[in-house]
Amino acid sequence: MNHSHWFVHLCSLTILMQASSIVAADDTDPLPSWNDTATRKAIVEFVERVTTEGSDDFVAPADRIAVFDNDGTLWPENPVPFQAAFAFSEIKRLLPDHPEWKEDPAVAAFLKGDIKALTDNHMQGLFRILALTHAGMTTDEFDQRVENWIASEQHPRFGRSYIDCCYQPMIELLSYLRANGFRTYVVSGGGMDFMRVWTERVYGIAPEQVVGSYGELKYELKDGRPVLTKSLETVFVDDKAGKPVAISRFIGRRPIAAFGNSDGDQQMIQYTTIGNPRPSFGCLLHHTDADREYAYDKKPQSSGKLTVAMDEAKQRGWTIIDMKNDWSRVFTEK
Amino acid sequence: MNHSHWFVHLCSLTILMQASSIVAADDTDPLPSWNDTATRKAIVEFVERVTTEGSDDFVAPADRIAVFDNDGTLWPENPVPFQAAFAFSEIKRLLPDHPEWKEDPAVAAFLKGDIKALTDNHMQGLFRILALTHAGMTTDEFDQRVENWIASEQHPRFGRSYIDCCYQPMIELLSYLRANGFRTYVVSGGGMDFMRVWTERVYGIAPEQVVGSYGELKYELKDGRPVLTKSLETVFVDDKAGKPVAISRFIGRRPIAAFGNSDGDQQMIQYTTIGNPRPSFGCLLHHTDADREYAYDKKPQSSGKLTVAMDEAKQRGWTIIDMKNDWSRVFTEK
Repeated sequence: MNHSHWFVHLCSLTILMQASSIVAADDTDPLPSWNDTATRKAIVEFVERVTTEGSDDFVAPADRIAVFDNDGTLWPENPVPFQAAFAFSEIKRLLPDHPEWKEDPAVAAFLKGDIKALTDNHMQGLFRILALTHAGMTTDEFDQRVENWIASEQHPRFGRSYIDCCYQPMIELLSYLRANGFRTYVVSGGGMDFMRVWTERVYGIAPEQVVGSYGELKYELKDGRPVLTKSLETVFVDDKAGKPVAISRFIGRRPIAAFGNSDGDQQMIQYTTIGNPRPSFGCLLHHTDADREYAYDKKPQSSGKLTVAMDEAKQRGWTIIDMKNDWSRVFTEK
Repeated sequence: MNHSHWFVHLCSLTILMQASSIVAADDTDPLPSWNDTATRKAIVEFVERVTTEGSDDFVAPADRIAVFDNDGTLWPENPVPFQAAFAFSEIKRLLPDHPEWKEDPAVAAFLKGDIKALTDNHMQGLFRILALTHAGMTTDEFDQRVENWIASEQHPRFGRSYIDCCYQPMIELLSYLRANGFRTYVVSGGGMDFMRVWTERVYGIAPEQVVGSYGELKYELKDGRPVLTKSLETVFVDDKAGKPVAISRFIGRRPIAAFGNSDGDQQMIQYTTIGNPRPSFGCLLHHTDADREYAYDKKPQSSGKLTVAMDEAKQRGWTIIDMKNDWSRVFTEK
């Protein structure tokens, strides 16, 4: 066997190995928590369409961008969004050191349990609570506070750590897309710094692929060390029309797949699906499962109103995930 | 040969192939445009240090982030930064359709060739020129204008297309770092949208890894299609203290290597190297080559002043690239 034969032989063996591992992967269902419904079929059909080489609908891996809303799409947003739960918990923890906060109308409303007062007037009270708990500390200090909260608190209804409250079918979907050459991004109205502490652990999504709302940071050398201090000046709100803006700013390419669950996701799904020169997929998760999670749309419990986006979904043929019928399991097995 | 033997045999062959390809890669110099100087040695030594498995200084691939300034670090910034050359060219091209611009003091100064008037008063005139040429159009229209300019104009001194004016040694360095598991980012004071049109072609850096200055975008459906219109409201300036802020916002991890050439890069290199728990590398490109490119530092020609960052580099042991002595070639072979 001369050298070139030996090389060809090696190459054939390697191709054989790769082919056999593809067969092996096909034997294992990549979406075990999804029932065998039209929704699952639509997702799989889209992925196969854009990844079949030689097909007119083939999309190069570099352009396989999938964007996901977070609250209500990857993890629950009831009874309050996780970030609000964190902020409330921080107010209680820090109150002994800040007796003056009791005079603050927002803190007083929270201490009385008056959530309505917090959400009136375009959520002014809630923003005040966020300001008290999300500004004035360094990014490292903030990350540590989020870590401590994750480690110590449980979701009030599900009795599990928040880290175990992400939707198992969506985690499978993220992995399935990545296994098919997609890059998966979070594009959420939630605070970017809050999410980045744990999105890699729960979703396998690295910090640089997590886009969210953010405020200004102040850089300085403090005791000779570089620090960034969080502020709520010039806040960018990554919701509604802010989502396509953030996608352009942070990703710089138009996605081919977008997943959301509320009117806040309408513009992101428009931007992904309308007039896109590539094949595209728009999808809304409809919360229809009061037994295992929550059921809401027009009358949301805390957030996640779904009215105009649902109308547009029907008109444009975006896929609707019906949580109750499409998912065999909601949360990760404990 | 039973099946498990066959499998082991295959694996050994595959490992053999990988090992031989590593040897092959070592045979080819990854940095052919770098002279064999202490600078080159410092770069290679750092890369080998952080990629040697089992060593205390090993850095996991996910944390191998390298950030590069652009103007004056990856491409020239004289006689004016490329983006200013583009803006001046656009003023001339669009002037027939905008006779009213002749009354504008900034345009009038530009038409008279009075660059000093444009750069006085914290560059107010230049910003006005940028506003006239970088706002009011959709992102797609803007990208097309940059494409047209790249295709039609040449650098006034080097008589080459701007696309052929990037520094060949830095292109090799970017590839060398990526071949060693680094993710390479541009973090530049230049406009993000302007750079993203061509950074993938010239540097192999995808749009989502290009961070720069940016203004607000307005999202809307126009004739039923989603568009983003550029504005210069709430401009974020990715320079000086803005660079660590942008790194935190866009990358969410502290880099382990930072390359710049001016005082605008000082904070980015501080943030990368001071008190970093991982090994880190700070580097400044010193323009010392009036024959092949330009020589400047304290008295920059158009931009790129290098004074306090050079003092800090000496004090902290950041590496200085001496363009004249360290590079055997400046631009790509035509």
